This record gives sequence, structure tokens and C-alpha cells, in this order.
Amino acid sequence: MNDFSKKECYDGSQIKPLWALNKFGVSGSSLVIFRGSMKIPQDEMIDMQDIIREKDLAEILISGDDCIHFIIEMFDDQPANLKVAYHRLHLLAFIVQKVVEEEYEIELVKKGTDLYHKEKKMNVAIATSSNSSSKIHFGINIVSTGVPAYVKAIGLQDINGKIDLEKLAERIGQEFIKEINAIDNDVMKSRTT
Amino acid sequence: MNDFSKKECYDGSQIKPLWALNKFGVSGSSLVIFRGSMKIPQDEMIDMQDIIREKDLAEILISGDDCIHFIIEMFDDQPANLKVAYHRLHLLAFIVQKVVEEEYEIELVKKGTDLYHKEKKMNVAIATSSNSSSKIHFGINIVSTGVPAYVKAIGLQDINGKIDLEKLAERIGQEFIKEINAIDNDVMKSRTT
Amino acid sequence: MNDFSKKECYDGSQIKPLWALNKFGVSGSSLVIFRGSMKIPQDEMIDMQDIIREKDLAEILISGDDCIHFIIEMFDDQPANLKVAYHRLHLLAFIVQKVVEEEYEIELVKKGTDLYHKEKKMNVAIATSSNSSSKIHFGINIVSTGVPAYVKAIGLQDINGKIDLEKLAERIGQEFIKEINAIDNDVMKSRTT
Amino acid sequence: MNDFSKKECYDGSQIKPLWALNKFGVSGSSLVIFRGSMKIPQDEMIDMQDIIREKDLAEILISGDDCIHFIIEMFDDQPANLKVAYHRLHLLAFIVQKVVEEEYEIELVKKGTDLYHKEKKMNVAIATSSNSSSKIHFGINIVSTGVPAYVKAIGLQDINGKIDLEKLAERIGQEFIKEINAIDNDVMKSRTT
Amino acid sequence: MNDFSKKECYDGSQIKPLWALNKFGVSGSSLVIFRGSMKIPQDEMIDMQDIIREKDLAEILISGDDCIHFIIEMFDDQPANLKVAYHRLHLLAFIVQKVVEEEYEIELVKKGTDLYHKEKKMNVAIATSSNSSSKIHFGINIVSTGVPAYVKAIGLQDINGKIDLEKLAERIGQEFIKEINAIDNDVMKSRTT
Amino acid sequence: MNDFSKKECYDGSQIKPLWALNKFGVSGSSLVIFRGSMKIPQDEMIDMQDIIREKDLAEILISGDDCIHFIIEMFDDQPANLKVAYHRLHLLAFIVQKVVEEEYEIELVKKGTDLYHKEKKMNVAIATSSNSSSKIHFGINIVSTGVPAYVKAIGLQDINGKIDLEKLAERIGQEFIKEINAIDNDVMKSRTT
Repeated sequence: MNDFSKKECYDGSQIKPLWALNKFGVSGSSLVIFRGSMKIPQDEMIDMQDIIREKDLAEILISGDDCIHFIIEMFDDQPANLKVAYHRLHLLAFIVQKVVEEEYEIELVKKGTDLYHKEKKMNVAIATSSNSSSKIHFGINIVSTGVPAYVKAIGLQDINGKIDLEKLAERIGQEFIKEINAIDNDVMKSRTT
Repeated sequence: MNDFSKKECYDGSQIKPLWALNKFGVSGSSLVIFRGSMKIPQDEMIDMQDIIREKDLAEILISGDDCIHFIIEMFDDQPANLKVAYHRLHLLAFIVQKVVEEEYEIELVKKGTDLYHKEKKMNVAIATSSNSSSKIHFGINIVSTGVPAYVKAIGLQDINGKIDLEKLAERIGQEFIKEINAIDNDVMKSRTT
Repeated sequence: MNDFSKKECYDGSQIKPLWALNKFGVSGSSLVIFRGSMKIPQDEMIDMQDIIREKDLAEILISGDDCIHFIIEMFDDQPANLKVAYHRLHLLAFIVQKVVEEEYEIELVKKGTDLYHKEKKMNVAIATSSNSSSKIHFGINIVSTGVPAYVKAIGLQDINGKIDLEKLAERIGQEFIKEINAIDNDVMKSRTT
Repeated sequence: MNDFSKKECYDGSQIKPLWALNKFGVSGSSLVIFRGSMKIPQDEMIDMQDIIREKDLAEILISGDDCIHFIIEMFDDQPANLKVAYHRLHLLAFIVQKVVEEEYEIELVKKGTDLYHKEKKMNVAIATSSNSSSKIHFGINIVSTGVPAYVKAIGLQDINGKIDLEKLAERIGQEFIKEINAIDNDVMKSRTT
Repeated sequence: MNDFSKKECYDGSQIKPLWALNKFGVSGSSLVIFRGSMKIPQDEMIDMQDIIREKDLAEILISGDDCIHFIIEMFDDQPANLKVAYHRLHLLAFIVQKVVEEEYEIELVKKGTDLYHKEKKMNVAIATSSNSSSKIHFGINIVSTGVPAYVKAIGLQDINGKIDLEKLAERIGQEFIKEINAIDNDVMKSRTT
Repeated sequence: MNDFSKKECYDGSQIKPLWALNKFGVSGSSLVIFRGSMKIPQDEMIDMQDIIREKDLAEILISGDDCIHFIIEMFDDQPANLKVAYHRLHLLAFIVQKVVEEEYEIELVKKGTDLYHKEKKMNVAIATSSNSSSKIHFGINIVSTGVPAYVKAIGLQDINGKIDLEKLAERIGQEFIKEINAIDNDVMKSRTT
């Protein structure tokens, strides 16, 4: 996890393969957490449904002034498997919901991989893959400013100004790693026919 | 979903490949829900860790007098992938936790694929696979009787006698199907490199 | 299936991943049929053997004035499997041959994925894949004009001017979907060891 | 291909993995053709839909007095892929139809992997797989005797007594191998993204 | 690694899935080394070529009075991949050859996965797989007694009575693990297209 | 194998998919050997760890005046599997070590896929993959000139000026093909559960 005082803008470059290796020298499956704004040009967007639905609404369709970003890269399936990546992203969405609800009693509604508080959207989420790794980006709004005008958004600090963002992010990361490890262990204890 | 008034004992035969086809003529990926007791001989147990940990404790290690059983068979990966099955089982555990908490305000703690109410275990959960399909069994205790003596168990009706079991089971099934369909849709909207 | 009166040129862009989603908002596995000319720059060609064999013969190696185009995208294998795509393309070639022979008594000889009428080539066929989807293009000549000079080509209307092209295309599409569904069903009924 | 004068009964043992290696010392992917009767006990049947549909109709559900049998084993996908096997079985059904129609002008209707002459069934077809190989059995009736009473069957010699069975079988085998090789070549010539 | 003073006979049960979990409570990918005799009934043999070649020569085709046994189970590919297992077995054969040559200056010739000293066979080697794990057995003769009469065998102590067997076995195990880890690291550092 | 008198520079273009088809019309899995210099721009480098470790040391990080180059393309796994490619590259490194040691009594130390003579590096090695094929480049220094200044390198002719390079290269190639074929045969003889 990066120091949250050193902010970095998520611009789509972070979801490219081997970014963590290139940027931090971290080799292998990894989960990197950092804080910063978000501004993704249409060319770098992964979600084709977003693009076709919203391309006439704004130049930049995904943006925000301040977010917690989770970047996950996974090499455990060769070749990489986007379907497995999306199973993990849905698990991550459950984990974020549970941790935020438990730690700060903020009620969230989960639709697919999106979390809503009183019908306002709190996050962005996407997965993609190359031949050798799959990647996840999960961004949680800290504030709602900077989000495109046509999106009803909300940030964690809009609801509760006293949230310890680093602690929250770290617990989410740990719960996610624990869940994935538990899945691995389950596979290795089960008889098959 | 089967009529809950016609009870059937889960004895391990239901987790074999093509059981739904053989029993009900249901072809393809399926989710079958039924109500009944549970009694699994050691030979039919899938979880080798359970077997080695508990084989000296009782003749029958997994049992219960009355449960809601979910039997899921999946053919969408060829050859079948046990790791994907366990991702889905972990998603199912989240869904059961959420539905039970939301509908009946029963607090549950999730550890891996097990759900606990006040440190008492409420379910069993396992996945397995053959070459062409993977299977999940998720059993929720309705009562705690019949569970092996060394397990601290609890059932839904031990907490709240007024739960509409059929409605609960059906909502869990629907949420699970919705989640898996959402994952499929996510895969089909994402650009890859 | 698109209205055949609105012609569209096949230029290689249609075989890119997520084209149907981007163009028509159609998400998931899809079969799109449209009518129009064909003009593929060498950079967009998939078939490397065609390129090396013919690159000195013409600027544009694959072209035609009027064709029926089938564009198929498949997401059912993750990661996408080009070998499965080619099995399907070979099945499609059998289906086209059978339908054309049965409906219009036009004798065709099938060599791999190419169909010939009296040693004149009636179609082009290729498959490709990205990490998350595989794609097929199958183009049937309606007329032989516009095809590169060094290719002996023939079109459906060169043989029989009265062919109902839309009906023919639709029946081919339906037979293909029926065949793929039958394969899925076969997988889900078979015991494995 | 075996000498057709040495008949052998197809009893389900031939579809087990490594049968060709065990029986003939033939290692690797193989296509074995032999002639003989067919008598498959329910325990050895692969098709669960047949079993549930017909189990009350007769003791032996699949039988015949004299057939041409094609046994195919494929190791090219590791782990073995039943879906690929069924694609090949559907290709084989097209090939048999085409060869029989072309060589002997016997009209056949293909439904899935079954071939009918005037609504009478001419063959049986199934695929299965273990972890390391997939297998196909395709049996063509030579005569209709010995087929279960409730099946309307027909054999090649019921239609045309002069068919050269060995030549026919060999041509079918060669066309099948040619088709599979063509698919392999297609994969190895195609650019992917 | 097991204490070499507690000998255990390799009888084929050790190559079954989850043996290390069942026997030692070791979950996950594992390499177990033990010392003991070897006696494999034909029913438990994996190598069908050995069986068909030698079944008339003796009751027990694979045996030996004293061997070092390596049992490897691998869960990293889901579903398990026998081809990957054999790549690893061939790497292991190179490693054994190199370590034995370097440490004790014993010249060995490697043919596939077999090692020969002056045309006498020093080992047995096989791999197999279930849906969720693949397994390797590599047995090195310590003495040549007990080996079937028709095999020209040799053991490590027949060549050099002073070999520290535990040290040798441990170094082989460590080199193998190092090689597999290096492969994993290589995958995670490489750009793909 | 190419004529060694016609030298060709390895510039990274040779590791692209379908290079052998495009350059020589060789379709399918192939092993091409040629002699020449090596000069790889950072953009064409595959090894991200090399790039981040050494990017400040020189413009060109991988170079040499004269090398034997092995370019391998493999289509046998669909989709292509980089992990399998690296298993093969590690096998190739063992083979090169063994052949060089046996034929010319040159002692080499193998670390991963790198070979050292007296702590001087003798080769470069990398693998990569696209969706449909995986590729290996293995380059053995003939001389140490032209290698980046910060690398302690050595070439075959620096040690022994009389090495028959073509014969050596050919034997390495043949041993590699023999090893891969042996693996294929092993897969096809083994019973699985």
C-alpha cells in the first residue's frame, strides 16, 4: 500500500499488464492501493457498454477528484482468465460493502460491482486481461466532486468525515487476500471424480 | 425448486455429475433447492480436511435433521474448473449472509464459506468437479438437532421460528443466478489487450 | 440480421472484438448478417498464408462488389479458443453448402472452409481471437465482380438470379445456431470418466 | 482400419481411455474402424438422456446386429475438452452424410449427430472424456436387425446391398482426418489480436 | 522430507490425489520424499505402454527392494494439466542427472525420463492427473535387488556405497522447487502481445 | 536451419507471432536456427525485469556481435500457454548445457535459463505469447564483443575456436525436438483418474 499523502492520478495506465513491476519493481500477483484523482480518456476505457451509452455526454466519462484505488494483477491462471477476474471483482464488491457497513455503519446497496448509498454511486469497477495476466481496478470515491455531471455520485467523506481512509483501505485489501487464499485452500482439500 | 413438503435426505448422491438430469430430467447448468435431512457417509465426503481432522470423532461426520439444500451444477467451463466453482461458492456464502441479515436481521459472521451466528455454525458447503461439470452443495441448518455432537451448530428456526423458508431459499437462488449472469455480462463488455 | 437494403462494406473492422456491441449495442455472443461489398487492406487481413502467397498480385487481396456477410462473436470459452472457433467455421461451411444445395440445387464442393461451384470460388472465410472472444467472418459472393482478377470467383446470382438472399441468409444463421446449441446440449448429457 | 472379416462386438469397452493402446499398441490420437455387432449395458452407456428416456423400454437400450464402428481418441487438448470432441462429432456426422449421399445417392437427414433415411435412424453417436483424452464412438447400422424394438432403424444394406463397406468406411475416416488437419492448419495461419 | 530410517513401501497408493493431505495433513502443492521398497500391482500401474509390453513377463512389473521416492502433487493449474506435469518430470530427470553427476561423479545417460548408468536403469518415473491435481512419482534405485528379473537395473549404492542418500535427496528436491519457482517468476516478468 | 553463412540480425521482430510463416512460408510449430548479431531496442524487449533493472545503463540493453539464435513457435496449446513455453525454455537450457558440456567439455553453470562459464554469461533467453502461439528466443554468444559493457559475457569461440557451430546448433535443435516429442508420448500412455 502506498503512502496516502503522495497522491497519484488514475489515468488508465495502471490497468496495463506489468504496471506494478514497471512502476514499483513488484513482480508477480499483486494488490496495490493508492489515493488520488481519476481521469480516464475514452481510449483507455475498458467498459464498452459505458462508452456506447455515454459517449455523447462528456469528453471524460470516468473521473473524480479524490478516490481510493485498488489495482490487482493476477498471474495464477495461464493463460489469464477474464471470467475468473470478474468473479474476484464481484467478491471484492461484497467485501467493500461489508467492511464499509461494519466499520462505519454506512448502508450500501450492491448492484453487480457497483455500490450505492441512497441511490448515489460510490465507486467504479472494471477488469481486463492480457494473455498472461488479468487486472482489476476498483476505485472508491472519497468525495463526489470531479465526477461527471450526469452521474449521481457520493464519496465516503460526504457521509462521514472521520473515516480513517488508510485503515479502511488496508482492511479491504486484507479481506480480499484472505478470501482468495481461502478459495485456493478449498480447491486443494476437495476430492474430485 | 422442489416442494418443501416433500423432504429428501442429502446423502452425497446429489453432488454426483448429472444428478439433476438423472433425477428430474433437467439438462444443463442447474440450481436445485430441496428440504430435508443430511447424512453423508465418509466415503461420499468431498472435504479431505474434514475427514482427516474428524474421522475419529464420529461415524457420520456431516449430518443434520432438517436443512435447506442448494445443489448447483455448472457446465459453462469445458473442461470443468474447480477453482471457478469455489469462487462461486464464496459468492453464494456472501449472498446467503446478506439475504438472511437483510430479511430477518439475523447477524452472521462469514469465515470462508461457513456462516456463524454467535459462534455457532449454520451451514455446510463444498464444491467438486468431474471432467465436464462442477458441482456445489450448500446446506443451511433449519434446526440444530441431528448435527454431530462435537459441532456447535444452530439452525434458522432456532433463531426465528417465523422464517418463510421457501421464500428465503428462492430469494437466495435468484440472487445467486443474478450474480453469475452479471459476471457473464461483465466479461462480454470489457476490452482486453 | 440487418436490413439487406442498407448495404455496408466489410473492411476488416467488423472482425475486431466487441464490434457488435460498439455498433449495435448487442452484448454477448452474437451472429450479425449484413449485405455489402468487401475491401480489406493487407494490414487488416488475418490470413497470413494469403498474404505471403498473394502479396505481389494486388494491392487489395480480398474484395468483392456484393456479398452476404456473417460476423460471429463467441464468448463461451474463457480465455477464447481459436481452435474451437475454427471447428465452428468448418461446421458453418458444411451448413452453407447443405442449405445452398438443398434450397437451390446448386452443387458446391467444399475444400476446408471454401466452397466452389464448378471450380469457381464462392466465399471467403476466416476466424481470429482476442483474449476474451473469438470471431468468424464468412462472406458469400452474390456477384463475382470486384473480386481480385487472379481469383476465379462466382456469385450466387451468377448461378440463379431468383435466390431470395435474405431468406437464404436467415436459414443459414438459424441452422448454425441450432448446431451450436445441439453441441452444448450434447456436452451436458454425457457421462465422463 | 481393421479387417472387416474379423468382427468385434462394440460393448462400451472401446470408448474407455487408452483402449487403442491397450488393444493394438497404438499410441496417441487415433481413429480405429471395425465391423461388428453392438450391445451396450446400461452401466456402460454415456448418454444420460437416453438412459432416463428409455430405461423402462428394454434391458439393452443400444444394440444392433452389424455395424461399422468408428472409435476416435484425441489427446491434442490437455486437459481433454468434451466440447471440442462434440464439435468433431458433429463434423463427422456431416462427413458421413456427405460421403453416403455422394457415393451411393442415399438421401440422409441430419439432426444433431443422428442421420435418418426416410425417418429411420441409421446410426448411434456419442462422445466422452477423461482428464487426458476425449473419445468418440460413431456406429453406422449395416442392417436394422438387432436394434431395440422401439427404435425405427435402418441399415446401409437395407437400402443398397452393393455398398463396398470397407471403401465407404475408409473414405469417411480419411475425410474426417483431412477436416481435423485443415482446422489445425487454419489455426496456425491466422493473426490474433 | 520423511526420516529415511522409517521405510515405507511405494505401492501405487501414494500417487493418488490428496495422498499427502490424507497421510500427513499437508495441504496444497507438495513434494514428499521417502525411502523404501516398491511393489506396484498391475491394477495400480499408470504406464499403459509398460503394461502391454511386459504383462506376460512377470506378475509384478515394477518393483525394487530399496529406493528414494519423490511424490509431487501440483494444484497450480485448474483443471490439472498432465502435459505440464510431464514437462516437470522431464525437468526433474535433468536435475537428478545433474546432481548425481556433480555430487558423486557418476555418469548417467538420460533417455526421456529414464536414467542409465552403463546401460543399466536407475529409476522409474511416471505422472498422472485427476481433475484438480497432477502427480509425479520418481523412484531412484538404491540397490538393484528386487527389480524384475528382465530389467537390467542398478542402484546408487551399487556404484558408490558412501553416498549420503538424505543429503542427495534433499538437494534434488530443492533444485526442483527452485526450477519451478524460476519458471513462475519468468512468466510474471514477460510482456505478451 | 538456415545457412550460417547468411547472417541475420536478431532485432526482436523474430519473436513476433507467425514470423516463420511470414518470412519462410513455414506453417505451424517450428524451430528456426540462424546466425547473426543481436540488437534489441527497449520497445521490443520482453523482459520487464531487465528493462527496469538496466534502463539507465545503456540505450540498447541486449546486444552482441555474433550469436546462434533459436526461434521456436508453438501452437499445440490453444489458447497459447506462456507457462508451458517457460517449461520448454528451461528444458532447452538444460539441453544446451548438456550438449555443450558433452561435445566440447566446456563447463557451464545454469541459473534459471542463463548459462555461465566461469561466471561469465553465455546466452540470452526469453519466452512470450499471443492468443494463438507462444514463442521462445534463445541466443548463444559466439563471441563476447558487442555485448553491453556492464555485462560480463563470454562466447563459445572465446573458449574453443574450433567448435563446429552448425553441428552444435543442429544437435541442440534435435535434442529439443526429441524431448518435446517424448513429453507428448508420455501424456498419451498414462492412465488418469
